[in-house]
Order: sequence, then structure tokens, then C-alpha cells
Amino acid sequence: MHPESSPLGEFDLIQRFFKTGSDAMGSNKEQAIALGMGDDCALLKSRPNEEIAITSDMLVEGRHFFADADPELLGRKALAVNLSDLAAMGAKPIGFTLAIALPMVNTAWLAAFSKGLFAIANEYSCSLIGGDTTAGPLTISITAFGSIPFGKAIRRSGAKVGDDIWISGTIGDARLALAALRHEIILSEQDLKQIEHRMHDPAPRIELGIKLRDIASAALDVSDGLLGDLQHILKQSEVEAEIFLALLPKSATLQKQNEAIQNQFAASGGDDYEICFTAPIEKRAAIDGISKDLNLSLARIGSIRKAAGEAGKLHLLNQHGDLLNATQTATLLASFDHFAK
Amino acid sequence: MHPESSPLGEFDLIQRFFKTGSDAMGSNKEQAIALGMGDDCALLKSRPNEEIAITSDMLVEGRHFFADADPELLGRKALAVNLSDLAAMGAKPIGFTLAIALPMVNTAWLAAFSKGLFAIANEYSCSLIGGDTTAGPLTISITAFGSIPFGKAIRRSGAKVGDDIWISGTIGDARLALAALRHEIILSEQDLKQIEHRMHDPAPRIELGIKLRDIASAALDVSDGLLGDLQHILKQSEVEAEIFLALLPKSATLQKQNEAIQNQFAASGGDDYEICFTAPIEKRAAIDGISKDLNLSLARIGSIRKAAGEAGKLHLLNQHGDLLNATQTATLLASFDHFAK
Repeated sequence: MHPESSPLGEFDLIQRFFKTGSDAMGSNKEQAIALGMGDDCALLKSRPNEEIAITSDMLVEGRHFFADADPELLGRKALAVNLSDLAAMGAKPIGFTLAIALPMVNTAWLAAFSKGLFAIANEYSCSLIGGDTTAGPLTISITAFGSIPFGKAIRRSGAKVGDDIWISGTIGDARLALAALRHEIILSEQDLKQIEHRMHDPAPRIELGIKLRDIASAALDVSDGLLGDLQHILKQSEVEAEIFLALLPKSATLQKQNEAIQNQFAASGGDDYEICFTAPIEKRAAIDGISKDLNLSLARIGSIRKAAGEAGKLHLLNQHGDLLNATQTATLLASFDHFAK
Repeated sequence: MHPESSPLGEFDLIQRFFKTGSDAMGSNKEQAIALGMGDDCALLKSRPNEEIAITSDMLVEGRHFFADADPELLGRKALAVNLSDLAAMGAKPIGFTLAIALPMVNTAWLAAFSKGLFAIANEYSCSLIGGDTTAGPLTISITAFGSIPFGKAIRRSGAKVGDDIWISGTIGDARLALAALRHEIILSEQDLKQIEHRMHDPAPRIELGIKLRDIASAALDVSDGLLGDLQHILKQSEVEAEIFLALLPKSATLQKQNEAIQNQFAASGGDDYEICFTAPIEKRAAIDGISKDLNLSLARIGSIRKAAGEAGKLHLLNQHGDLLNATQTATLLASFDHFAK
């Protein structure tokens, strides 16, 4: 995986692959960043009536990506998963720090990785403002920063009884691509091509998050599986939910699979990086308008119910309108968890 | 190293070892942190006339610490090295995110690690506000945040011709401890005990950094070796420096070694986490006052000179007042670099 090595030192490395891209960057720098790379710390300006959203994600080789992953796509994804967290709060990206452990200095790999990283950083006006480089098993740790008007952050705890539950885009495709690459499921080359980008190159829903600031009552980004992630909203909002499995938005490619696989992958496949949010019923027209503006499907998949017992319970209805029993629900909920067996 | 494992899931893990310590924390939370752990992002409040300092460090097993490192001390050090960067800018700690890859869930190890982490977090009023937990080779990535009045950050670029060059505490002991543990040098058990904490449990100089805001013209924390790190100040300030090696502050234990080892370890041993700073001559009395207030030695080791050619040049004078030649200087400068051979 790392065929070439070079005697570059740490400072040369930072300078060559990461500093230039950062300096070349755009408008946010003047607005929010007082000092970027090259000192003990970066400095963000405080601006009146603003909050700064902060999120950290760590990607480990063999766990979050294959050892032979395309480094350019990996650079994109490493930042995109953090931007997805910013999107879920309604934050506008400002900048990020990158801490990276590398088994050795492979200049071709680094050039491709930084190309992908800075492409998405530029796309979302998010500057590299600092970081750390070390030798070690390939591990990418990014912390991203976004700005949000004071009090406008969309938290997980705001869902109210009667609210609709929404999900952006389609879900389950990243899991389907993984299944195909693991040979658990056989897909035609053309089908795989249709969905593979959902696994390798997720699109953070930044514009959606910003438009939802005054619309959504709660939101999160779906990374570990829709139903498992939704339960974080339910628990923090102290409510339950009713979900219609037939309403989960699936790509044409996923719809070619049998119903059990469709439901499993859409409900708890993970790696979707779509936004699941709740909103009052009276916001339906506004949400349909946002969907048209962004050319992004937004599907209403259920509603928030009063908690009868412990908060977080899911009431799942199948294609025929039948309520799933506890065992069926638990099976569907077997969500991706980095440590669970 | 990780004899026990447990079937805890990621959310249980975060909840059990990291959330409680965070919730129990103090005063900074109300002032600067609008939202801590448990959502897609943490939220920092912007406050008028303030900048937020941000720094990231990554520690990798086998590279930055031994596989059998005491987990409690490791928890302390992982945060301390980041606080040292905040100190070097003059920032007051607010909070930090922790991304950690663990080979398996070892509850005894995690309990000790989080105990050490939260002990130093509480000591410096720095709350855990978010993070990520995953399986992988043991890697600890912390991003820390501090606040600083607008325009008061001490940058590397501010050193002026004629300024004194200062260093806090003593230097070279962490390198001496490493040499002893690697059996490169034989130390008595008592001598090792005197200095070992300098390697395992560095003290971030937060109070010093805050007091230097209106005093120092430039500063950085010494992590990779004094002379190599000082060159970052020199290059960014476009100046040169004259350093008297006899003035480098060394512990009584290091002073038992021969002159060559004393100079080598003090000049470029690394892992010191002391603050090297520059200040105008007229600040000498004020700096001596800070030293007394903090009961921390501050040693004047040289001065800033006009750059004759390329900025960054070091003029080193030995114990006899003789200028070191280029070869001698290069040998002394063979600083720790994570990728250099």
C-alpha cells in the first residue's frame, strides 16, 4: 500500500502537502480565522451572536476503510464525515484540524490524499487551520469547526410529540456497496457503479442543515444506521417514534434486492451521512420547498409519539401496515457498532 | 497489555468512562461551553473581544509512549501536551475533544486512563466536550480549545532584534529519562526517580502563558527540542539568535552527566514542554517578578540578532565562550523528528 518512502521530515511534510492547500484557501479565512497553520495554535475570531460547533471523527485503516482505498476519495471522506456532523447542527463550516498517523512517507499517496481533502475543503469553504503528523498505523483524526447564529443550533433534544420524522436523500446504498465489495451480495458491475460513491464519497448536507435552522425541532446525521441513530433523538427528547418501513427512501438499485435486505440496509446499514430530522406538521410545505430548492429528496417516514415507558422506543410498521414485534425490531436494529460483536 | 475485554458497545463506553467526568466538571462550562458531549457537535459561545486558540496532538503507541505505559499517566500526558500548546499562545483552557482508537475494551485500562485525563482536565478547568471512540491500534488524538483576549495571543512571529531569549523550568530531563529507560545511559534508581516524571507527566505552563501575554514578543512550547523549536520563532520572525549553552537550565540530575550529554539533551532532547519565549530587555524585572510569583525558574539564555542571510541561523557559544562551528551546531541540532531517520 505504501510502496515508496522518502526521507522527508515532519515539517517538510506538513509544508509540502498540507500548508499550500491551506494558504490557497478562500473567503472564510478572512472572516473567521485569525491565524491558521504554523504556530502552537490556530486562532478563531469570536463574532457577536455566534456559536462555534465542534466535531471530531477518527478513521482507522481496516476498520473504516480498506487498506487499498483510493487516497483521493479517502481524503474527501475523512473531511466529509465531519462536515456531515456540522450539517446536522445547522452549522456553516469554518475550518478543521487534521491529525494523521502514517506508516511511512509515501509522496504519491499523500499527494492524492491532500488533493481529495482540499477539493472538498474548498467546495465547502473549510480551511485547514492546524494539526499534527506522526508515524504510526494509518489513522486520520479530523476536528471540524462551524459557525451558527446564537441559539439556532439544531439539537437532538428538541423533538416534540406529533412532529414528523424526515430523512434526506436515500439510505442503505453504502451498506449495499459494502456487501457487494465483501461478496456477501452479488451486484452487476453497473449496479455497483450506481451506488459505490455513496460508500466512498458521501455528500455532506451543509445547505440542508443551514435551511433547517428555523424549521427542524431536532436533527442528527445518520452514520451508524438510521434507526439506531434516531434513538439518540428519541432518548434525548424523551419521546418514542412510529416509523413506516415502506416510506424509507431507497435507490432504484437497492429496490432490486429482496424486501428483507432493503429494510435491513435502509433501517440500519450505516455510513449513509444523510440528515434525519424532526419538524412540526405545519412545516411540511416549507420542507417541500427546501427539497425543491436543493434538488434533494426529503422523505417523511413517521412521527414522534409520547413516551409511554422508557424513552427511545420504536414502533415499526412493515409494508403491510403490521407492527413488528420485539424480536423483529431488535433484528432490524442490529446497528453498526465499532465495538459490539 | 489489554488482557481483559468486554462486550460494551461504543455508546456504553463513552457514557461509562468519558461522559460522567465531563458532566462533573466546573466553572468553564457555564462561561464558554453552550453544549458539551452527546450531540453531533459541541457548541462554544462566542464572547466579545475574544479569540479561540485551537491545537491538535496525536499520540501513538510505540512512538510516543511504550506499550506498557501507565494508563493514568498517559491520560494526563495526552491532555497536558495540548495544554502546553495553549500555554505557549497565552490561552486559558476551555475544553477539548478526544478521539481514541482502542485495540479492545479493557475496562481497567480505560478507568485508569480516564482518571488521569479528568484529573488534569479538572486541574486546568478544561472540559471534555466531544469526541469519537473506535477500535484500532492504540491512538489518542486530542484537540484542545482555549480563550484569549482579542489580539493578545503570543505568536511565533513577533521576536525583535535585541530581545532576550528565555526558557522556563529546566530542560533535557525527559530525554535523560528516556535514555535511562532505553539503557543508553545508566542512572541510579534515585536519579531516575528525580526526573522520570518529566517524561511521563509534563506540567503545562498555563499560568506562565497567561502572565506573558503583555510581556513576551514571541513564544512556543518546546516539544521536539529547544534549538530546533526555537528556529521556528527565528524563521517566522525573520531573525537569528545567539545562545549561550552554559545558560541552558539543567536539573541537578542532568548536571551529573558529562558536558556533551548535558548540552545534547538540553539543546535538542525534546519532550520538555517548557515555554521558550522572547521579550524586550526592559521586561527583565517583570519577568523575574513572574518567576517569583509562580515559583518557576525562568532563565535568560541568549538574544535575538538581525538576520544576515537566511533567517533562522543559530550562533551557539560553548562553556568557554567559543562559537560552535557548522558541524558542531548541526550535531547539537539533531532534533527529534517523527519521520527523520
